[in-house]
Amino acid sequence: MGRGIFITVEGTDGSGKTTQVRRMEAYLKEKGYDVLLVREPGGTRISEKIRSIILDPENQEMGIVTEMLLYASARAQLVFEVIKPAIENGKIVICDRFVDSSYVYQGFGRGISLETIEEANRAALGGISPDITFFFDVSPEIALKRRFASTGADRIEKEKIAFHMKVYDGYKKLASMHTERIKTIDSTRSVEEIWEDVRKWLDRIIDK
Amino acid sequence: MGRGIFITVEGTDGSGKTTQVRRMEAYLKEKGYDVLLVREPGGTRISEKIRSIILDPENQEMGIVTEMLLYASARAQLVFEVIKPAIENGKIVICDRFVDSSYVYQGFGRGISLETIEEANRAALGGISPDITFFFDVSPEIALKRRFASTGADRIEKEKIAFHMKVYDGYKKLASMHTERIKTIDSTRSVEEIWEDVRKWLDRIIDK
Repeated sequence: MGRGIFITVEGTDGSGKTTQVRRMEAYLKEKGYDVLLVREPGGTRISEKIRSIILDPENQEMGIVTEMLLYASARAQLVFEVIKPAIENGKIVICDRFVDSSYVYQGFGRGISLETIEEANRAALGGISPDITFFFDVSPEIALKRRFASTGADRIEKEKIAFHMKVYDGYKKLASMHTERIKTIDSTRSVEEIWEDVRKWLDRIIDK
Repeated sequence: MGRGIFITVEGTDGSGKTTQVRRMEAYLKEKGYDVLLVREPGGTRISEKIRSIILDPENQEMGIVTEMLLYASARAQLVFEVIKPAIENGKIVICDRFVDSSYVYQGFGRGISLETIEEANRAALGGISPDITFFFDVSPEIALKRRFASTGADRIEKEKIAFHMKVYDGYKKLASMHTERIKTIDSTRSVEEIWEDVRKWLDRIIDK
């Protein structure tokens, strides 16, 4: 049994990534892989506590650096307690959001430099990086419409549309900076069409 | 009204620093200064929430990097919400523990490199650094005896004596690396004798 595979999934809220993540999990399990599904921020008892501070709508006075470091803290716990051990044990780990979300939301979105985010997150990553990242590409107008149709809004989701546009543009810039790792999936199409693309990439990475 | 003064206070628990901090505050207020007393981790609503995660004895599985980043998060909020505005408004800020505690507890104590801690904390400090730091120097044997006589124990205080020795040695190393900024105060003496030393340094820094 060798080293596992680390897959991350990115996109604005409402980009349909959660639906695809569930398909990915079912597909890989059916193929006999040991699959672990986690989400950020969260995924461990301590990370969920940190998540509740980050997303509490009461915490309006939270500074952008505080927020960025809290995401890094939650990530560190998830990496050391769950992701790293799972990968070392040969599992396929699918993580719904990872450090790219920090680059995009706290970086492009809130204006913290990418260097600062990289620096603050280096220890949190513990030397791991995704083997492949899916970016579900859909404009905020469509994504937000999808999102608010299904669930309530938390602190971050209440931010203005301008912020979501910055995030979306940030994702596209980031994807263009890491074309080898980040696969951009046109997510304006039907669930089935999106899944066909995702499945092809999955087959390619598990056959390596 | 010019820029204020930023004073930090360091030492192992039980080093008598809290007593001295109260004296410092009273002394400076009597002299007509606008003094603000804060403590780490904490000092803001959000930082106190982070503090409660860090110090919760239930959180035994917390990774050392998570812990280090949570301290940095709580610090960032304190710096941006309280310390920086106060210094910019000409106040004297006395902070009971600051980034030196991370170097000593998470660095020398838990084994994270000082470079990693510096990197993770750079954004949190927002460009500020203490004008003067008092290190209340007393060996862990004496310090712990003092501490447990007065209050209960939290998660960090339950750590073994070996850890406290590493922390103590770390403080001494750090003080030797920053002799201009960090003033080592022999804290095995009486409260009055310690205060005489502290007062002399305070007079020197406020007369500048």
